[in-house]
Formats: sequence, C-alpha cells, structure tokens
Amino acid sequence: MASFDGIIIDGLQYCHWSEKIFRDLQRGGVTAIHVTIAYHETFREMVGNIANWNRWFERFPDLIFHGRTGADVRKARETGRTAVFFGFQNPSPIEDEIGLVEICHQLGIRFMQLSYNNQSLLATGCYEAEDPGITRMGKEVIREMNRFGIAIDMSHSAERSTLEVIELSSRPIAITHANPSSWRDVARNKSETVLKALAETGGMLGFSLYPHHVKDSSDCTLASFCEMAARTAELMGADNIGIGSDLCQDQPDSVVEWMRTGRWTKQLTGATFPAQPSWFRSNLDFRGIADGLRQVGFGKEEVAGLMGENWLRFFERSFGAEAEPQAASVKS
Amino acid sequence: MASFDGIIIDGLQYCHWSEKIFRDLQRGGVTAIHVTIAYHETFREMVGNIANWNRWFERFPDLIFHGRTGADVRKARETGRTAVFFGFQNPSPIEDEIGLVEICHQLGIRFMQLSYNNQSLLATGCYEAEDPGITRMGKEVIREMNRFGIAIDMSHSAERSTLEVIELSSRPIAITHANPSSWRDVARNKSETVLKALAETGGMLGFSLYPHHVKDSSDCTLASFCEMAARTAELMGADNIGIGSDLCQDQPDSVVEWMRTGRWTKQLTGATFPAQPSWFRSNLDFRGIADGLRQVGFGKEEVAGLMGENWLRFFERSFGAEAEPQAASVKS
Repeated sequence: MASFDGIIIDGLQYCHWSEKIFRDLQRGGVTAIHVTIAYHETFREMVGNIANWNRWFERFPDLIFHGRTGADVRKARETGRTAVFFGFQNPSPIEDEIGLVEICHQLGIRFMQLSYNNQSLLATGCYEAEDPGITRMGKEVIREMNRFGIAIDMSHSAERSTLEVIELSSRPIAITHANPSSWRDVARNKSETVLKALAETGGMLGFSLYPHHVKDSSDCTLASFCEMAARTAELMGADNIGIGSDLCQDQPDSVVEWMRTGRWTKQLTGATFPAQPSWFRSNLDFRGIADGLRQVGFGKEEVAGLMGENWLRFFERSFGAEAEPQAASVKS
Repeated sequence: MASFDGIIIDGLQYCHWSEKIFRDLQRGGVTAIHVTIAYHETFREMVGNIANWNRWFERFPDLIFHGRTGADVRKARETGRTAVFFGFQNPSPIEDEIGLVEICHQLGIRFMQLSYNNQSLLATGCYEAEDPGITRMGKEVIREMNRFGIAIDMSHSAERSTLEVIELSSRPIAITHANPSSWRDVARNKSETVLKALAETGGMLGFSLYPHHVKDSSDCTLASFCEMAARTAELMGADNIGIGSDLCQDQPDSVVEWMRTGRWTKQLTGATFPAQPSWFRSNLDFRGIADGLRQVGFGKEEVAGLMGENWLRFFERSFGAEAEPQAASVKS
C-alpha cells in the first residue's frame, strides 16, 4: 500500500519542543498541529510562552510558522512546513477579564478549553464531583469566542457543561483530544450522548493516543485504535472525527505534575508520563495510522478526512470573525 | 478662504476619551490620531488599556476604529471615521523582555518612546542630570522595533540618547510632540542639532500645542505658532513636520500627576493641566491651524503635508515589517 500523502493535522500536542521534533513534523508529513501554550498560566505568563514560540518561528522558518487560518494549513502544505496553531487547555490566561478573549484572538490563540479537570470561572472539569454547568461568565466568554473565532474545546470538561456549551455556542465546538468512554471508561473520555450532540452540531472529536485514554494503555494495538475509530464513525459520521494525539514527547515528569496540580493544590500526585504505544511514539508515526484505518475498512477519502481534511474544514469555519461588528448597536 | 479639507493626522493625543471627543474628531475632520495607551504601565496593565479601547471601537464603529497601517488612514478618510493608532510614552510595557516588542506589534502598537522624562532600561529621559546614551537592551529593542515596525519616538528623551538612536535606527524615527527649543527653551523641546539630524534621516517632528511647550504658554498666539512652523520648515524642510498636539482634553489633574510621578517617587508635584491656547481647545480646531499656516506663507501642498500627508507617508514607511525573516539565519 502506498504511504499516505495527504494533509495531516494533529488536534493536540504538548511536546518538549526542539529542533528534533520540528524536523520530525516535517519528515512525518504533519501539515498542522494545535499546540498547548497554557495549562494554568496567567495572561502575562502565557504571553511569555508565545514569545518562546516566536523565537522558535524565527529560528526554524523552514520548518514551522504560526498558523492562524485554514489558508495557513494550505500554505504549510505548499511550502513543506508545519503550521502551528495555539491553544489553551484552561481559561486561566483570560483571568476574569472578558476583554482578554479578543486580545487572545489578536495574539493568534485559536482554541481554548473552558475548564481543565477542575471547576473554572466558566465551566466544570471532568474530575469534579458536581457539574453545575456553564457559569454566568462562561456564557459571556462563549459569545466572545464565537464572535472573534476562538474554537471552544471541552476535552477536559464535565458532561453537563459540555452538553450545555454545545447548545449555547453559535459555532461548532471541538473535543480536541479524547475517546469514546465505550472503548475505555475513564473520566476524560466521552459518552455517546456527548459524541452524538457534538456531531449533530458539526463539532469535531480528535482521537487521543495518550495511554490513559486508550484501551489497554501502553499496550493498545493499532488495530484496536482503528476499530474504535470505525465504531465512532458509525456513531458520529466520518466527517466529524480526526486525530488529537495528546503527544507529550520528551517531556520530563515534572510537566505532568504541573498539568495535574498547577498551583491549586499542595498535594503532589507523583504522576509520570506513561510509555506510548509502540506504533505511535513521535510525529513520524502518523502515516502508519492511515494504513491502519484503511485496513479496518475506511475508504480513501474517509482516511484523508480523518487524517486532516476534517480538521481543516473545522479550522476554516472556526477561526475567522463571526461577522463584521454591527454599526452602533450599543450606545452610551 | 475655503476651510481646509485634506487629511488631518495628529501625532499625539491623550484625552479623557468619550463619545463627545469621538464625535469632535469626526466633526473636526481628523482622519487619524496616535493615542497614548501607556505611561508607566506594566505589560498586563497596558493590555487592560487595549481592552478598554476595544470596547470603544465596539461601541462607536461609525466614529473610530483601530488603525494599524497607512492604508487604514485612507480607509478612515473614505468612511468618514478616525483611525486610532496606539503608542506608549514609556517602554515600561515591554518590561525586561525582548520578545514583548513583537507581541506589542501584534497587538497593534505602532509607536514607543524609549524613555519618558527619566532613565529607562533603554535610554535617558529629558529630565535626568546625565545622559549616558542608548543602553545594551536599548540597542536590542531598537533592532526589534525596526524589524517589526514600531516607530521609535524620542519626544521625552534626552539629547545624546536621541542623537544616538537616530544613528542606530535603520528606519526614520519620530519626535511626535515637541517644539524647537529656539522658540521656547524648556527641557522637553529640541535643539537644532537634534532637529537637523532627525530631518536628514527622514524623521518626523510633530509640533506640540501643550502650553508648557509653546511660547507664552496659554497665551501663545496662532500666528506665533505658525511662524515657528515656518522657521522650522526652513531648518528641516516642509516634508518632515506635522502636528502632535499633546491634547489632554477633559483629563482630571490626577492624570498629570500620574504622568509625572507614576510609581517611581512618593514626592507629588501638585501639577495641574494648564489652560489650552484659545485657538486650540479640541479636535474641532485643526482647520484653524491650516488657515494660520497659509497666512504665514506655506503653499497649499505644504499645508496638506503639515496637516497630515507627511505623517501619512511616515506611517506608510514605518508600520510594516522591515523584511520577511531570512530563512534559517540562526540555527541551534
């Protein structure tokens, strides 16, 4: 079988970035990635993270550039580079200030999770005991995100909050990195109810390859992953699914501790990064997934959709302004 | 004499912004203004000020919008609105982080003073006893401002620092709001040496209408102001001069105290805003200046230059990227 040569988009990565990984992206044919630039950071701290990315863009212009639009994905494809799209896993960078949503869009942020595991100012995380749904500020922020073009991501959010935001958002939302809980039943994975509601509104699910989200953890097989994708396509359609690998390559274990505990608790978890499945260890391994998807019966076009075209359509619909501001709609 | 109907650009204002003033801008035919959005603010505080402006842009889209390019001045002219360009009077918002220059350009900042009255991390202010010139970080920041397209403004800087930056900068710089010290000899005004060096490198001087910078303070006459402009045109040429009114309309006196003392001293000055000259009290008064300039002998084209076309050319040359980043010029 000829090696897959279409557009590859990964819906989430948080690697310990280096020239090696940027070269892997190019060699592996990865056209675009959504990268996390904030877990628990304040606005100011997040801006420092953008400045670090700007330095990488300046140093490696033949490998990577800052992606802001769907057209940038096509530009990456044409120039043999990888477009890097910024996102937050937590709304902490907008703090308690509604005006920061627009500012973040100006800075090129294209995804924001409304909550990360815990309750946020906006929504509930998947590890809370109770989920009271979208907050007052949450409703305001959803409107602003819709307006300017920051995609709502509910990967780490709880069920009621997720269903409410699917209803409230005027634009399709994403779950960039998670799997169906029917395949592996953990708090981070999603129910059929959520996945159906997501697909019915044109939203996207990115399949996670993080061991804690897949069946049999580090021993998960490619065939099992691809079978899961086929079952999910029956539920959601083949147009609303893609990859969101959650690849955390080369990160020290201190980073998973930061993800989990941030500054909100003194109780450390002692968590470590699990070993990746043997068939997905780096950005060189995406083409193998395409082969696996063909083997479980996906058609050529469906594989192209799943590997990148579906995310590309979502990017094209999601990152521009909703409409020109209406003249003088609010007066003092 | 027919009332002036060309492009009007004001090189600096810091009013207590309100619908009234935005309407004055439109009625007064002001096409573009450079407004101060930071005196002593940190980066985070400055972003809050941008958020306030974004709210005004949202509320008054028929009057004002955020200007980023010379083309935006023409767009303002065509749509009967005022393009608002952001600037800092002090480099405090970039803190000690070189990467914030690019971030600020992304946020639409188009002018930055390298120092405000005092020594900064970059250069010396006009009220310091000693002026050791541009600092190590100053040289780095000048390169980044040149590269991304933030115009260097030395209005409140000391002489040696100003002469050095004129030499160091690869692009023309501005003194957005000051006058020749030969007309009024105060620390804020500029020597012939500075004005000549500025003009020889294609830089711009914006004539200030702030009473402390003009002859006879609040009693300054329009004729005296326009005569000064004519003498300066003899020194600098009529293409390198414009208006930078420093209009601080409707501000409470607490604001001039903030400008002068920020957070760097506990000694308050008790300063108050002086009364404006009778012929320049608001944005309705620019056309009168155009009349005055004709009366001291400026030709019609020269008046158009002085009222706005000269600033427009400067904007067109100054706010875009210097060049595409060179591929792979720095490798790890």
